Amino acid sequence: TIHTHLEEALHSTQQESPLQGRSIVVTAGPTREKIDGVRYISNYSSGKMGFAIAGAAAKRGALVTLITGPVHLETPPGVKRIDVESALEMHAAARTFFQSCHIFIGAAAVADYRPAAPYERKMKKEAEEIEITLVKNPDILAEFSLQKSTKQLAIGFALEMQSDIDNARKKLESKQLDLIAFNFFDRKTSGFEVDTNILTLIERSGKTTELPQLTKHDAAERLLEVIEKQYGSKSPLHKNSR
Amino acid sequence: TIHTHLEEALHSTQQESPLQGRSIVVTAGPTREKIDGVRYISNYSSGKMGFAIAGAAAKRGALVTLITGPVHLETPPGVKRIDVESALEMHAAARTFFQSCHIFIGAAAVADYRPAAPYERKMKKEAEEIEITLVKNPDILAEFSLQKSTKQLAIGFALEMQSDIDNARKKLESKQLDLIAFNFFDRKTSGFEVDTNILTLIERSGKTTELPQLTKHDAAERLLEVIEKQYGSKSPLHKNSR
Repeated sequence: TIHTHLEEALHSTQQESPLQGRSIVVTAGPTREKIDGVRYISNYSSGKMGFAIAGAAAKRGALVTLITGPVHLETPPGVKRIDVESALEMHAAARTFFQSCHIFIGAAAVADYRPAAPYERKMKKEAEEIEITLVKNPDILAEFSLQKSTKQLAIGFALEMQSDIDNARKKLESKQLDLIAFNFFDRKTSGFEVDTNILTLIERSGKTTELPQLTKHDAAERLLEVIEKQYGSKSPLHKNSR
Repeated sequence: TIHTHLEEALHSTQQESPLQGRSIVVTAGPTREKIDGVRYISNYSSGKMGFAIAGAAAKRGALVTLITGPVHLETPPGVKRIDVESALEMHAAARTFFQSCHIFIGAAAVADYRPAAPYERKMKKEAEEIEITLVKNPDILAEFSLQKSTKQLAIGFALEMQSDIDNARKKLESKQLDLIAFNFFDRKTSGFEVDTNILTLIERSGKTTELPQLTKHDAAERLLEVIEKQYGSKSPLHKNSR
């Protein structure tokens, strides 16, 4: 769009971002896992953080593909949006971009589990108690990260209910991420359905940056600054390697 | 509000509705049933039908209380809105209005079941397969209908995947409703997440009115016309009984 081109032009007069012209995939929002034709399992993710990241990356001149679950948000200018519903749909959409993207940012709250045998129509149920069997969904971010080349970055989020940061560090290790944003879950200031977040950015090197309570927009900017440094140092010849 | 008073005044110059000054409770939207601190079970209800009914009733001068699950909709002018999340919360809110309302319209897609033991925090799960036990939620509409006085009306919806209307008739009987709107579920033209509905209105007397595909707004108007007739004939002295 003209708007994006103007923003890109404006940005490039200020400074060239190492993300300029790079392909970035961002996942966002919740997924919905069908129980039957009318019922589903989901989570409280609003998609705001992922959309803010996608917008901030596009402003830096990156070619952003935003794969999102069902949310009520406007697509940021210059971002290519792909709407999906379930974790399996998000997985399929993400896989088509794994090879060709430079940076993969998993900000979606992908459902860990889905009903094992979803029913096409509406279930008729009379029993006082019923059981639903859930099976594990693929870990989209880990799958990308564990197969990524040395030129690709994988960035993830860890939403934790405890202030215990070790769980986030474990995820960074086990998924071999380049950076994990530890997201302390607090109903009022950070996490789902609020406009602010309190993130701690943990890099592969161990470097840890504690951000204060910021709007998700500002938190996205700070995250992108760290990613720019990481990507810039990883591929110092990025201007020539296009 | 001034707006409501103006609308009421305007309406009353046209014709006095038997719903004028009557207390109507409308339930709308889905409910969300917590699995844990971040996950829930819900359904695809958008709340549009219930909101349209609430708006149409308020235009007729009724005193409308709209009890709604989580939706992304504007409150219709002159309607008192109460936001709830779970079926149990909707049940509690509805019960406070049972005694004093003249007409109860259950348009919400209340979850039939909720997780038996929701977990406060975020579950840590590693297993390939897990089981969730669900227990039955109260049937809010049936509870009101079965205890209503002869001066009160209970109106319900039956969302059915088959064109088999008998199920709706059975619900009308078993819940002793005054009217049930049989709502054929079709992803494109009728039911959840679309702007139109194909309703068949079945009254206690057996009288059946098949409506064509209408906007939910127009369907609400037609439903209210039938309710007006039912309520008017039930309480012919309504003007004096205030």
